[in-house]
Amino acid sequence: MQAPLKPLLKALKGESGNAVPIWLMRQAGRYLPEYRELRSRAGGFLELCFDPALAAEATLQPLRRFGLDAAIIFSDILVIPHALGRKVGFASGEGPFVEPLADEASVERLRRDRLHEELAPIYEVIDRVAGLLPHGTSLIGFAGAPWTVASYMVEGGTARDFAVIKGWAYRNPEAFERLLAVLVEATAAYLVRQVEHGAEVLQIFESWAGALAEREFQQWSIEPVKGIVARVRKSCPDVPIIGFPRGAGYGCLRFAGETAVNGIGLDPSIPLAWAAHEMQHRCTLQGNLDPVLLLVGGEPMKREAVRILSVWGKGPFIFNLGHGVLPTTPPEHVAALVEIVRNWQCDPADAAQSQT
Amino acid sequence: MQAPLKPLLKALKGESGNAVPIWLMRQAGRYLPEYRELRSRAGGFLELCFDPALAAEATLQPLRRFGLDAAIIFSDILVIPHALGRKVGFASGEGPFVEPLADEASVERLRRDRLHEELAPIYEVIDRVAGLLPHGTSLIGFAGAPWTVASYMVEGGTARDFAVIKGWAYRNPEAFERLLAVLVEATAAYLVRQVEHGAEVLQIFESWAGALAEREFQQWSIEPVKGIVARVRKSCPDVPIIGFPRGAGYGCLRFAGETAVNGIGLDPSIPLAWAAHEMQHRCTLQGNLDPVLLLVGGEPMKREAVRILSVWGKGPFIFNLGHGVLPTTPPEHVAALVEIVRNWQCDPADAAQSQT
Repeated sequence: MQAPLKPLLKALKGESGNAVPIWLMRQAGRYLPEYRELRSRAGGFLELCFDPALAAEATLQPLRRFGLDAAIIFSDILVIPHALGRKVGFASGEGPFVEPLADEASVERLRRDRLHEELAPIYEVIDRVAGLLPHGTSLIGFAGAPWTVASYMVEGGTARDFAVIKGWAYRNPEAFERLLAVLVEATAAYLVRQVEHGAEVLQIFESWAGALAEREFQQWSIEPVKGIVARVRKSCPDVPIIGFPRGAGYGCLRFAGETAVNGIGLDPSIPLAWAAHEMQHRCTLQGNLDPVLLLVGGEPMKREAVRILSVWGKGPFIFNLGHGVLPTTPPEHVAALVEIVRNWQCDPADAAQSQT
Repeated sequence: MQAPLKPLLKALKGESGNAVPIWLMRQAGRYLPEYRELRSRAGGFLELCFDPALAAEATLQPLRRFGLDAAIIFSDILVIPHALGRKVGFASGEGPFVEPLADEASVERLRRDRLHEELAPIYEVIDRVAGLLPHGTSLIGFAGAPWTVASYMVEGGTARDFAVIKGWAYRNPEAFERLLAVLVEATAAYLVRQVEHGAEVLQIFESWAGALAEREFQQWSIEPVKGIVARVRKSCPDVPIIGFPRGAGYGCLRFAGETAVNGIGLDPSIPLAWAAHEMQHRCTLQGNLDPVLLLVGGEPMKREAVRILSVWGKGPFIFNLGHGVLPTTPPEHVAALVEIVRNWQCDPADAAQSQT
C-alpha cells in the first residue's frame, strides 16, 4: 500500500479542495537567530552552502519552528557558476560577486567536466535532509534559470540596468546563446541529480524576468527554461517543477504554458482574480504575499493573506510569499502566518468573513 | 490665424496618421560631452538644476544635435522634497540621498509655504527655454508621482525592498495617506505653475510602480495621480498629460483609464500588440525601446525600432525609450535612431520590409 501523497505534491498534481500547503521562499536565513548563530560558525556564505552538516542544519531550522509543508535546500543559484569554474563571493552588506566572463570566448573555457564533483556537497545536504524530514514534509531542490544566472556571470554581480549582458546578447548573439545552452545543460543535470538524491519537487528561479522585453523574455527566459524542463522530465517524469518568473507580469501566463511547469510562482504584483481565471485551471499557483506584509505582521498581514486564500485557496494552490523573507522579519510573524493558513483550511467560511 | 499644432501636441490630441514625433527620456545628460562639460562647471547636481542659465543650456543641448520633437526641462523629481524642506543630495556614483522623514509626525512638519519660492529657479528655466525652442518643438514639464517621491522621502534614497515605506503605510495608514495628500497638492501646484511659465505638455513619472501589489497600486499610485491630473485640468484643461507607470505591467491599462492621462509611457516589458489593441484607441502610446538597444545601436536597435513603429506607428504614438538614456550611450546612436523614425515616416512600407 502506498503512503498518502504529501500536501505539497497533491497541490502540484493539480488536486484542489485540499488543505492549502505553505512554505516560504528564504524560509531559512538571517531572520532566524539560530541561523545567524550557524552563519557565524561558517567562513563565508558559500562555505556554508558547501558544508553538508551546516547546510542541512540551516535547511531544517525553519521546520523546527513552524509547521511548514516543505523544506528547500539551503543553497544559492550561484553554485552553478562556481561549479563551472568561476569565482563567486558574497561580501556582507553588498550583493554577490561573480568573476565576470571577460569576453565571448570565455564561454568556451567554462569548466564543464567537474560539475557534479563541485556540487557533491549539495547532493550530500539533500541526502542528509531527506532522512530527517518531518512526516508529510516535501523536499524542494532548486536552481536559477539561465538568463538570471547568466546575468550574474556577465555583469559580475547583481545587474543594475543589464546593459553589459544585453550588449553581449545583441552584439554577439551566438556566444550568448552558447552561454545559455551551457547553462541549460548544466542546470538540467544538476536538477536531475538533486532528484536522485531525494528532492521531490524542483523550483527554477527566474529572478530577473522583469528586466526582459517581450521578445527577449521569449528567447532568453522561456526557451531555456523549456529546455531544462524537457531534459529533467526525460529522467524524472513524475517530479513536479515550479517556475518562478519574478517580475514577468502577465508574461507568467505564457511562461507557464510554454515551459509546461506544474506550478507557477507569482510575485506580489500579479492580480489575484486574473491569475485564478487565466491560469489556475491548468497550473498550480504559488504565492504571492508581499514579504513586507510578513515583516509588518498583525492585521495588515492577516487581511491580505486571507484575501489571497479566498481567491486562490480552493486550489490547486500553494501559499507562499511573492519574494523571499526579508532579513528583519520577526519569526513570530511567520508562525502567525502559518496559523492563518491552517485556520483557513479548517473553516474557510470563517476566514472569509474576517476579510471585511 | 492659428499656427499649426506641433507634432507632439497633435499626437497627444489623439491624432493618428501623422509623422511620429520622437523625444527621449533623459535626452539631456551624461552621455553628451557638452553636458559633462556643463556639469563640471556646476557645484552639485541639484545646483545645476537650480541654476537657470545652466539648466536651460542642459535642456537645449540635445535639441542642437538631434531633430527631436520635444525638450524636457532639465530637472529632477526630488526638487519637490527639497522644496518641502528636506535635504536632498546626489553623491556621484551613488543614488540620491533624501533626509528621511524620521517619523509619521514629521509629515505635518513639512514646509509647505515656500514651495514656489524654492522652485522659482525652475520656473525661470522654463521661461528661458520657452523663448529659445526650435520651431515645432514642444516643451515638456514634469514631476514625480507621489508614491515614487514618497519612497525617496521615507527610505532616504533609492529603496531596495520598500520595506520602510510599506511598513509605514501599513502601520500608520493615516500618516501615509497624509504624506501622499501633501505630495498631490504640492505636485499639482508645481505642474500648474510650470504650464503658466510655458510648459506645453506634462509628464508624471511613477518610476517605482513595479514595487506595488495590485491593491497598493490602486490606492497609492492610481488614486494620487488621478488627484493630480484632476487638479491640473481644473487650471489648465488643454494641457496634455503623460503618465509613466514604469514596471506596472498590464496595470498600465487601468492606470491610463482611471487617471485619464492623455498619453501613457510604456516600459520595454510591455507587449506591443497588446498595448495597440487594448489602449491605443483611447490613449496616445509613448515608448518603449529598451535603452540598452540605443546603447548597442546598429542593426539590433534598428530592428526593434522598426518593429515598434510597425505596430504602434499608425498612431496616436510618440516614439521614446522605455526608460532613460544610459550614460554610456554613444550620441551617434541617438542620431541614427531619430533618422530611423524620420525615415519610417517618409516611407513606412520600406521600413516595414527591413523588419524581416
